[in-house]
Amino acid sequence: MREVAILGIGQTPVDEHWEKSLRHLAGEAVIAALADARTGAQQLEALYVGNMLSGPLNRQENLGALIADWVGARGVEAAKIEAACGSGAAAFRAGLMAVASGEFDLVTVVGVEKMTETGGPSTTAALATAADADWEAAQGLSFVAINALVMRRYLHEFGWKHSDFAPFSINAHANGVHNPNARLQEAITAKDYARARMVADPINLLDASPIGDGAAAIILCPADHVHGNGYPVITVAASASATDSIAVHDRNDPMLLAAAQRSAEACYAQAGVGPEDIDLFELHDAFSIMAALSLEACGFAERGQGVRLGLEEQIGPKGKLPIATMGGLKARGHPVGATGMYQLVEVTQQLRGEAGATQVEGARIGMAQNIGGSGATIVTHILQRR
Amino acid sequence: MREVAILGIGQTPVDEHWEKSLRHLAGEAVIAALADARTGAQQLEALYVGNMLSGPLNRQENLGALIADWVGARGVEAAKIEAACGSGAAAFRAGLMAVASGEFDLVTVVGVEKMTETGGPSTTAALATAADADWEAAQGLSFVAINALVMRRYLHEFGWKHSDFAPFSINAHANGVHNPNARLQEAITAKDYARARMVADPINLLDASPIGDGAAAIILCPADHVHGNGYPVITVAASASATDSIAVHDRNDPMLLAAAQRSAEACYAQAGVGPEDIDLFELHDAFSIMAALSLEACGFAERGQGVRLGLEEQIGPKGKLPIATMGGLKARGHPVGATGMYQLVEVTQQLRGEAGATQVEGARIGMAQNIGGSGATIVTHILQRR
Repeated sequence: MREVAILGIGQTPVDEHWEKSLRHLAGEAVIAALADARTGAQQLEALYVGNMLSGPLNRQENLGALIADWVGARGVEAAKIEAACGSGAAAFRAGLMAVASGEFDLVTVVGVEKMTETGGPSTTAALATAADADWEAAQGLSFVAINALVMRRYLHEFGWKHSDFAPFSINAHANGVHNPNARLQEAITAKDYARARMVADPINLLDASPIGDGAAAIILCPADHVHGNGYPVITVAASASATDSIAVHDRNDPMLLAAAQRSAEACYAQAGVGPEDIDLFELHDAFSIMAALSLEACGFAERGQGVRLGLEEQIGPKGKLPIATMGGLKARGHPVGATGMYQLVEVTQQLRGEAGATQVEGARIGMAQNIGGSGATIVTHILQRR
Repeated sequence: MREVAILGIGQTPVDEHWEKSLRHLAGEAVIAALADARTGAQQLEALYVGNMLSGPLNRQENLGALIADWVGARGVEAAKIEAACGSGAAAFRAGLMAVASGEFDLVTVVGVEKMTETGGPSTTAALATAADADWEAAQGLSFVAINALVMRRYLHEFGWKHSDFAPFSINAHANGVHNPNARLQEAITAKDYARARMVADPINLLDASPIGDGAAAIILCPADHVHGNGYPVITVAASASATDSIAVHDRNDPMLLAAAQRSAEACYAQAGVGPEDIDLFELHDAFSIMAALSLEACGFAERGQGVRLGLEEQIGPKGKLPIATMGGLKARGHPVGATGMYQLVEVTQQLRGEAGATQVEGARIGMAQNIGGSGATIVTHILQRR
């Protein structure tokens, strides 16, 4: 297959965008990405949308056709890809496959979610559709409750204290301060973390990422079509998706994100690199426990030792393994179906050297990992600056 | 890209399956397809799901991971693809791309919908998410009402009578009698059609396809991997998807299915054939007006003359262009996100010579066309017997 490059990126701030509809948000991101790529909507051959909740919350499906028409690309192939909170990166894989295979030469992928107001059920009920409807949600487990059970087990199993997770949230907020698109642009302290309101014991408000409205888009083309668009050429060095059971109780080992391990290892093999070569890692810190489990599954820490990287101050922009460099889900915000695309846009910003105050110096290889459900669908990508 | 073959097919009857959950239905179809392909779930490398309404109606998203695990393929790549009622064929394109590109050697695509009972809004409200939420649904237009406006305009514009559409429904029901998986296995007469209860003038009950629960699945592999599995080898000769505005009032010409035309013409070019070479056409007769418009857009009839093929008795299994040979959406039933996969399974049955009483003699080239929304997303495929 052909090598694929990221020709343009675009994003809206993550916020409560009550004055903008779903199509407006997606359109803003795509049009910004087209401008960044110095091309136009008329040149697009396909559009793939990552979105989870437009049906129940916005009473709108068929987003592919809707957004293609709205941005000025009426007629092109378009579809929505859904994999719960992993929808963004799953859609990116569809776009990647379309270009890598030779089917198309110029496509866009946009992740979009509008979830701070709803025309249907509560957002909490809608998010619970990422869990197993018959064996988790029907028992009254919300999505945060599932993660709380996992975190409680982790604390018990490996002997850590709740406060040992503080560095993940503190780092994300410290980085988010400098990202104009972040939902929460305010630093927090260890004291703030310790005193935050409890949500689902042991997860408190500062363990949890905020929901939000937003869209992020990328323009893809064959790597050898990129000539002098003014940016360093960023290519997709690896891409893999893997799954696990949706219900946590059904896993072989509830403390292992098996799909993260499988997709990360596939990516390392494709790119010919190992964890030690990754300059930054945009992980899926929807809850602080997920940051620890991701680091372990991807080979950055031993089993049960993920929190150690935070405690040893290795996760900041100048650390050994910078994570959540633009705020992560925790501070940038988590518009669920858009998050995977925000991660890929942010890795691109880092590899281009456009990340501002939290720029990882000399970043050349970046990894992004997007999780759907409490580990059920996990999509990993490695991007590389040529 | 590599040529891709259909190695196995499977389907459940379309019915009111109140005793089976979404995962049971999808699982039955996938396991039947695996058996037909003489392979096992452990050999699968990826699974793509076509589904529209699982979020609002079944309170379940993340269907890719759910179904992969359920059928015994935990771990593989999986995702759901949504394009309203065109979700089935849109998912098929994802599977096709995965194999054609060389990414995987054995994948399954399953279309599934469970819509005769709902844990959320009414099915009518859920189906309206295929329309434009801001400019159609918000005005109180249901999905059948939109099609009624189109049919009314067609009658006015081209001077046909409502009864001129009768042959589409009569043919579909006559064929459905012989399909054990069809929801409605009963013949109807012109008198039945004329006297049917009005739904949304001029669409009456026998112009409209019934909803249903069901799943249909296909196993795909590279064509040169097929050796002596006992069936004629069926390959995917062409595949294309195209879009139009979602809102009908926004089209350049509301009487032309521009996305059907665009995707069909792309398919003819890919396969090196023309409409005259198509031995049967599984079209998207969700409403009888859609049958007429599809025939015109795909070059089987002049503009405004689609109904003529029915009136001239050319659409039966022994006619010049057999359509709805297993009952079509009208009689087999329309479990929306599954329909596109039922069409492709049925074309395969025809090309294998397994279609029973409605077998199209000597069928070698078959076309399937799946429509999402009232023409917004249209996915066309041509299958061919080697």
